[in-house]
Amino acid sequence: MVRTGRRPGEARTRAEILDAARTAFVEEGYDAAPIRGIARRAGVDPALVHHFFGTKRELFVEAMKLPMDPGLVIAEILAGDRTTIGERVARTIFLITESEDAAPFVGLVRSAASHDDAARMLREMITTEIIGRIAAGLDAPDARLRATLVGSQVVGLIMARHIIKIEPLASADPEDLIPFLAGTIQRYLTGAIPDIP
Amino acid sequence: MVRTGRRPGEARTRAEILDAARTAFVEEGYDAAPIRGIARRAGVDPALVHHFFGTKRELFVEAMKLPMDPGLVIAEILAGDRTTIGERVARTIFLITESEDAAPFVGLVRSAASHDDAARMLREMITTEIIGRIAAGLDAPDARLRATLVGSQVVGLIMARHIIKIEPLASADPEDLIPFLAGTIQRYLTGAIPDIP
Repeated sequence: MVRTGRRPGEARTRAEILDAARTAFVEEGYDAAPIRGIARRAGVDPALVHHFFGTKRELFVEAMKLPMDPGLVIAEILAGDRTTIGERVARTIFLITESEDAAPFVGLVRSAASHDDAARMLREMITTEIIGRIAAGLDAPDARLRATLVGSQVVGLIMARHIIKIEPLASADPEDLIPFLAGTIQRYLTGAIPDIP
Repeated sequence: MVRTGRRPGEARTRAEILDAARTAFVEEGYDAAPIRGIARRAGVDPALVHHFFGTKRELFVEAMKLPMDPGLVIAEILAGDRTTIGERVARTIFLITESEDAAPFVGLVRSAASHDDAARMLREMITTEIIGRIAAGLDAPDARLRATLVGSQVVGLIMARHIIKIEPLASADPEDLIPFLAGTIQRYLTGAIPDIP
């Protein structure tokens, strides 16, 4: 690569910020990586990072190439009828995980299994940006636990279907899986805790 | 290490067979690794492998340091009352994953996420020794799919609680989790497929 010394173009600056963000998120975790630290790594002003990418969550979505912004998806899911929230979550998960853009997201789950840094980053991001939002939208004292139970089924679906690839789950039609998963998620989020017979 | 040339003792032979088995399972997968090939790698007679360890499944349990033999556990779970099978499975999973012997088992899930060889081994072992047995014991045309759905929730619980460690799930009391998981597993194994409202 030739270093010409000229002022880099916008595309190059964006790419450098995203590189710096990826490194910072993996090394420092999601919570401890501040926008201004990422800006310093990229050699730009923090205001430019905000200008290009918005919030830290939005920067994370771009840096990690997530197929969607969890903040927006959760707002949409919570806005609808609560008695059908399980189905909305299940359909959204398939929309995300079956899309062509899902590979980096599956890769993130894969990394979290084998690298403690990646696990910490994913844990902090899920806790700060996903669990908190879902819990705030649910009216239950154990809302955070219920949200993490949904997370466990979602991560398990990704592992079983896309990583370990256990059949017949791996090649089942999403429409055959949605009723099972929608029921589980609906119960985790809004169902009464069942009595053990 | 000093090679003395003397005939190794039984403990040493067992250890060599287990080493050979681990290598064979990871390199060849569960289905393709025959007892006689493992015996050849260890430089012993196949009859000795059977004598020491029994079936391939039992050898796998020992080689991978699994905390239990899935064949025995599944037989016990299927033998009981079908209307409470979800709770039996959930309690068994906590008994296994919370025990001090669980680390190699959690490590196996971890490896499967990052190494295709380990994923293949786990997939074949689960398919041949676990899914088939559960499906045979259930009276449902989609029994194999139902068994793999249970597998997805179990793998997801291990990932969320023991690997990614998302709170409050990671430090929740098993007794608070069992009702949620028992209900999910009961529904996956024996429940009617719910209508999406």
